[in-house]
Amino acid sequence: MKLGSLKHGRDGKLVVVSPDLAWYADASHIVPTLQGALDDWSTHAPLLQNLATDLEHNVIPRERFHERDAASPLPRAYQWADGSAYVNHVALVRQARGAEMPDSFWHDPLMYQGGSDAFIGPRDDIPLADEAWGCDLEAEVVVVTGDVPQGVSATDALDHILLVGLTNDVSLRNLIPGELGKGFGFFQSKPPSSFSPVFVTPDELGGAWQDGKLKGEVLVELNGEPFGKADAGDDMTFDFGTLIAHAAKTRPLGAGTIIGSGTVSNRDKDGGPGQPIAKGGLGYSCIAEVRMVETIEDGKPSTEFLKKGDSVKIVMMDEHHHPIFGTIEQSVA
Amino acid sequence: MKLGSLKHGRDGKLVVVSPDLAWYADASHIVPTLQGALDDWSTHAPLLQNLATDLEHNVIPRERFHERDAASPLPRAYQWADGSAYVNHVALVRQARGAEMPDSFWHDPLMYQGGSDAFIGPRDDIPLADEAWGCDLEAEVVVVTGDVPQGVSATDALDHILLVGLTNDVSLRNLIPGELGKGFGFFQSKPPSSFSPVFVTPDELGGAWQDGKLKGEVLVELNGEPFGKADAGDDMTFDFGTLIAHAAKTRPLGAGTIIGSGTVSNRDKDGGPGQPIAKGGLGYSCIAEVRMVETIEDGKPSTEFLKKGDSVKIVMMDEHHHPIFGTIEQSVA
Repeated sequence: MKLGSLKHGRDGKLVVVSPDLAWYADASHIVPTLQGALDDWSTHAPLLQNLATDLEHNVIPRERFHERDAASPLPRAYQWADGSAYVNHVALVRQARGAEMPDSFWHDPLMYQGGSDAFIGPRDDIPLADEAWGCDLEAEVVVVTGDVPQGVSATDALDHILLVGLTNDVSLRNLIPGELGKGFGFFQSKPPSSFSPVFVTPDELGGAWQDGKLKGEVLVELNGEPFGKADAGDDMTFDFGTLIAHAAKTRPLGAGTIIGSGTVSNRDKDGGPGQPIAKGGLGYSCIAEVRMVETIEDGKPSTEFLKKGDSVKIVMMDEHHHPIFGTIEQSVA
Repeated sequence: MKLGSLKHGRDGKLVVVSPDLAWYADASHIVPTLQGALDDWSTHAPLLQNLATDLEHNVIPRERFHERDAASPLPRAYQWADGSAYVNHVALVRQARGAEMPDSFWHDPLMYQGGSDAFIGPRDDIPLADEAWGCDLEAEVVVVTGDVPQGVSATDALDHILLVGLTNDVSLRNLIPGELGKGFGFFQSKPPSSFSPVFVTPDELGGAWQDGKLKGEVLVELNGEPFGKADAGDDMTFDFGTLIAHAAKTRPLGAGTIIGSGTVSNRDKDGGPGQPIAKGGLGYSCIAEVRMVETIEDGKPSTEFLKKGDSVKIVMMDEHHHPIFGTIEQSVA
């Protein structure tokens, strides 16, 4: 099933959305919010699934689903932990800088604790107070977990994945070096992210969900032009089970924890930095990566970070070319 | 007024607690949870204050308040952002290591995004799966904010502080160097923290709350022995207004955000590393600091990190020698 939250108060109003994203049924009589559903998933999920079936069969009242009315499915969350699972990307960035990448990066995931107190909606503007901060998009896959026990194995962790979605993990690139240099990780450099209009249960994804990875192109547009089409199932060094096990090594994870894949990135066919779509490549899921490639090839980056009025679109299609999770579509304001 | 949450479900049951912490009145008919109260503070605070007044005057039903029945006042939160405001401590640690501390540390606060999906209660055991992780306590002051607009000034930020309390920010010291070396900040090295049995409104603190700092000794006991009595009002380089302004530079903060001071630490009278209480000093608010002093003086640390069965107590007294926030009292299990 597909679940979304219509904008309503701080936590939205839970709705079940039809597979084609055209219709929704109000689910708030079952449980008012998605967080509430996740808090007691074994009780609520079967009832929500029944509602989804009735919606699909058009035997209950339904309303048109407008993605602009949707908040992020969890408008705020108790945990947002973002990995960096596409290690090829990290390796290439380091290579471009002439910096060594520790071998441990291939077997010990990078992960940071993100802010989760207020996400922006999938069609909301990205507020940017200062263009000099170097605003970037990052197209990623995310999963939402139920309660995860401390010390869970990577294999068992897969059973705790309840929902799958996409995010635009907005980053302020020019604030990152200073923050990471201080050693305490990201804070000011990670303003609120936005998530896809709906999150989807793994069973709804069919063959696209395999071994803790989501197979499919993450289509990214920048100002209406194709910018990236990397496949999220390729070059993902750490599957979501491994990322969850990493997060739960020293503590349990509460229901509604969102775990991110990090920026989706595929290596080029020749193993080098990915090429732009216009040159026959798979393009990029963030501006930082194209700037890195430009630096390698031209000595300096030419693609600018996001400025006021720039627009970003992130979507993944099913086999019928319909968006699976809806479309993240935002302008910088 | 003083507010606490009795253990009940994931978010506790809100209670108003008498100033002497002996009694409580159920507040859940006003709003079921502290997060709910914070989400609409201007509506709920006056009603809760009336209840607190009635409780103090013993004109409503009341029950004995047992701190062992209390969860952390916010059993889970949407944001836990911990600063490192006692820069003298950081400077001494660096000095002991022979490492330079960047001058920027004196005017640009260190802050990390902490996990907030499930805190442990003030009298709960600290679960420790592996003593080799190097489990440490960290006694800190915290504040809880309402909604804070992006770009708030340090002065205006003070108006957004709704509650004040204490925390034991549990840290796994031996996991920190590896994590910070990876550049993404703390994650596995910061298991769930616990908070004082009650949080208190700033007006209730009288003269102890001044200019965004809490004046008073943070009394720390380790296995029943006095371990620290540093004054939280001394040597705090960044007041809470400055910490909040730092957190809100690039994004608003949602209601119920908890901001931590970092480990409370006073410099010695001679400006050097603080001395143990047994030697007439003010002692320490974490084990790492005494180990640092031992390393300077003896060439190696002799105080061990927490092991199974060790106990920790953190409390701050008012002028009548009554605990202001109740007592954090935990054993390692």
